[in-house]
Amino acid sequence: MTVVLVSAVQESSGILREGGSMDAATSVLLTDLYQLNMMQAYLDRGETKAAVFEFFVRKLPRDRGFLIAAGLEQVLGFLEQLRFTREELDWLGNTGRFGKNFLDHLADLRFTGDVHAMPEGTVFFANEPILRVTAPLPQAQLVETRVINLLQFQSMIAAKAARMVLAAPGKRLVDFGLRRAHGAEAGIMAARASYIAGFAGTATVLADKRFGIPIFGTMAHSYIQIHDDETQAFENFARARPKNLILLIDTYDTEAAARKVVALAPKLKAAGISIAGVRLDSGDLIALSNRVRRILDEGGLTEVTIFASGGIDETVIRDIIRSSAPIDGFGIGSSLTTSSDAPGLDCVYKLEEYAGLPRRKRSAGKETWPGRKQVWRRLGGDGRMAGDVLSLEQDEQPGEPLIELVMQGGKRIGSAPTLDQIRARAARGLERLPEPLRKLEPGASYPVEVSKTLKRLAAEVDARMERRVTP
Amino acid sequence: MTVVLVSAVQESSGILREGGSMDAATSVLLTDLYQLNMMQAYLDRGETKAAVFEFFVRKLPRDRGFLIAAGLEQVLGFLEQLRFTREELDWLGNTGRFGKNFLDHLADLRFTGDVHAMPEGTVFFANEPILRVTAPLPQAQLVETRVINLLQFQSMIAAKAARMVLAAPGKRLVDFGLRRAHGAEAGIMAARASYIAGFAGTATVLADKRFGIPIFGTMAHSYIQIHDDETQAFENFARARPKNLILLIDTYDTEAAARKVVALAPKLKAAGISIAGVRLDSGDLIALSNRVRRILDEGGLTEVTIFASGGIDETVIRDIIRSSAPIDGFGIGSSLTTSSDAPGLDCVYKLEEYAGLPRRKRSAGKETWPGRKQVWRRLGGDGRMAGDVLSLEQDEQPGEPLIELVMQGGKRIGSAPTLDQIRARAARGLERLPEPLRKLEPGASYPVEVSKTLKRLAAEVDARMERRVTP
Repeated sequence: MTVVLVSAVQESSGILREGGSMDAATSVLLTDLYQLNMMQAYLDRGETKAAVFEFFVRKLPRDRGFLIAAGLEQVLGFLEQLRFTREELDWLGNTGRFGKNFLDHLADLRFTGDVHAMPEGTVFFANEPILRVTAPLPQAQLVETRVINLLQFQSMIAAKAARMVLAAPGKRLVDFGLRRAHGAEAGIMAARASYIAGFAGTATVLADKRFGIPIFGTMAHSYIQIHDDETQAFENFARARPKNLILLIDTYDTEAAARKVVALAPKLKAAGISIAGVRLDSGDLIALSNRVRRILDEGGLTEVTIFASGGIDETVIRDIIRSSAPIDGFGIGSSLTTSSDAPGLDCVYKLEEYAGLPRRKRSAGKETWPGRKQVWRRLGGDGRMAGDVLSLEQDEQPGEPLIELVMQGGKRIGSAPTLDQIRARAARGLERLPEPLRKLEPGASYPVEVSKTLKRLAAEVDARMERRVTP
Repeated sequence: MTVVLVSAVQESSGILREGGSMDAATSVLLTDLYQLNMMQAYLDRGETKAAVFEFFVRKLPRDRGFLIAAGLEQVLGFLEQLRFTREELDWLGNTGRFGKNFLDHLADLRFTGDVHAMPEGTVFFANEPILRVTAPLPQAQLVETRVINLLQFQSMIAAKAARMVLAAPGKRLVDFGLRRAHGAEAGIMAARASYIAGFAGTATVLADKRFGIPIFGTMAHSYIQIHDDETQAFENFARARPKNLILLIDTYDTEAAARKVVALAPKLKAAGISIAGVRLDSGDLIALSNRVRRILDEGGLTEVTIFASGGIDETVIRDIIRSSAPIDGFGIGSSLTTSSDAPGLDCVYKLEEYAGLPRRKRSAGKETWPGRKQVWRRLGGDGRMAGDVLSLEQDEQPGEPLIELVMQGGKRIGSAPTLDQIRARAARGLERLPEPLRKLEPGASYPVEVSKTLKRLAAEVDARMERRVTP
């Protein structure tokens, strides 16, 4: 018994430490109070029949023509590990809010439902579910908060990163945004989501350990500043960290520092050290990169690349690319990890069916489509996406169905795709995007049609409710 | 030996599970690769003398006249617990990036430095350090990423929440934003930061368990939807959860639902259940709240409060208050927990001194003030804040010094303030704000003067560097 305890705790601890937070094993109390209130109310009346909830985005943010599904892996990990610990149950009991019967129920609670989802890396649009949970009502209700919390963030960041990828064909993009991310989990998950969308990697060390994402690192101003002499700082760093050597040249005077790099290069070369690049982190990046390029080239350092960081987002990248400034890569911080122009998605997890009957919410501006749904995607003759249809699950439509069964009875189906497979799917999705959607200000919206049978079902649900609602 | 292991793992696991992430015990690998690269380079050359770094915000976001310091408690927990585990060291070794000497150094590394800081809950402005780390250079460097990550988020959210508190005097404000927060840690820390700023509480259950923050919960649309009859849904929920009963009335037709509440009230009263409030979550909140208030009052339910949620931010609150709409409280989601209009602060952690010499960065637009600094705050005759002076630590100025020693040699000084003490400090700070800063569009900026000696020191550092830089 002791052995089992040790093993379980170690396993859980391992997952947690790695993430600095982590998906799978976060406390089940990371939820809204009303979920527990409703669960108690459901159980009091035996309302434990199968419920179907779907997660979708109601409306895309202004400058988004599409989103990219991400976070499913963390949702499945969360569902697999879902349980109340003894300590959590004791605490809940001590609040005086819940009855003993309810706490006993929670003690045995596991997630036993099914999950259907779009694979991570899939391009998706407003009103298209990317996840469906089918489970006994109390379970399906309890997980709402964390499911939204996990899916919204990574899908949002993957979409933001994709804008940068589309704006910078052939350039190396690296996530520098851990420090400005909203806490630990946001930092590590932003590294994952941006890698899915096509970033080359991240500066976040833990993202390599946990997900195998390539990591990149240069040097900070503090390294230069502890030296009285900038050239000496470059040389010391080069000797200590000779591989993939990138020198930061904007601490005092960028052009002067570029000339110091040129002067230092032969000495380093003699020691077998080659300079891979220089980094600019302030000032007019277009003007400076041109001047620095000239200094480097005239000094024979034509192979030394120029890497830029500091206040960069997709519009800055686009302007730099348009200007043909000689910048080879970008380190992107807060604009990426906070999705700065759209830091939240208008997304929900809504009841679509209970006890075999389709359900629908009709709140002003927040109406939902009832029933279990599928999304079908057609490609045009040019290989680009031509249009989607939102239909009931069994109502076959032309094109490829995007939603598949990924968990059954609380157990995963098959093995999880690798991160590189997910990344390849996202890359394929970006290639297939219609041209107007590839722009930073999407010129048109993508056609998502609602099938006739789905519209008919919505009308039937309304009619059923009207009969009930009208006295 | 086994016993020790179990105990250590359990302890760590406990801390982690609670937070779903958590400050104190997150992996030390939640950092940027360049921190490790620089540490190795420092150690290679014995650069381990005392370094002084300060955290400050360079520039306030457009619609912020002030910020509120928050997150120090989590920073101190992180520093106290800082260590590399054997498993992390093995992983680092296997990357082939670092030498054995360096890994041996990391194995013994603990934070042994001093920390000076503004107490949590203190109002602060651009260029004012709220945290100073004085430690051997490699330690002070390593912690940069997580220190910024922790301080920026909570300070940003506390400031956002304060705007809502100032816009809604006397109203109950509740954090509903866990689902749209950027991951687990953001959700729990947003609950803490908004409570510091004056929110009544949060919906996040874990925030009560972990910090003792009051939690609030109503019901979701799904609860209504599983019933065919809305009145029956209200009654069932009321019987199951009779305390602080708040009924959600916008699922189908808000006014019709308000009339159902009136009709149901006598039956509930006979059962000893009183309705505390109703919640509106969609539509024109001003118009609907007026109509619902009339229906409730005409039905004798004058004591039933109206609580509003759904797309609310401080400008919506202001407009509602101005219209005198009869709304008694607000549940606020993504605008709060993402600081939607300003999801990142332009904040840094910068080297100000090394080996006894003041240091300064001069990158374009990113210059820093050298040396160990203090902030002095004067109050005017009206008891409001009249102006701050940024000076060197020992250069006494009129007013109250805001920065104090909180950790010495890696150990905390005194006991941590309670969350309610921190909250009281923030409330005092908001009371003392000059009137123009209390507005949502701050009418003026607060005067922060740089002392003469500090300006002189900056000039001296520049002159010292010029002598070095010029060939």
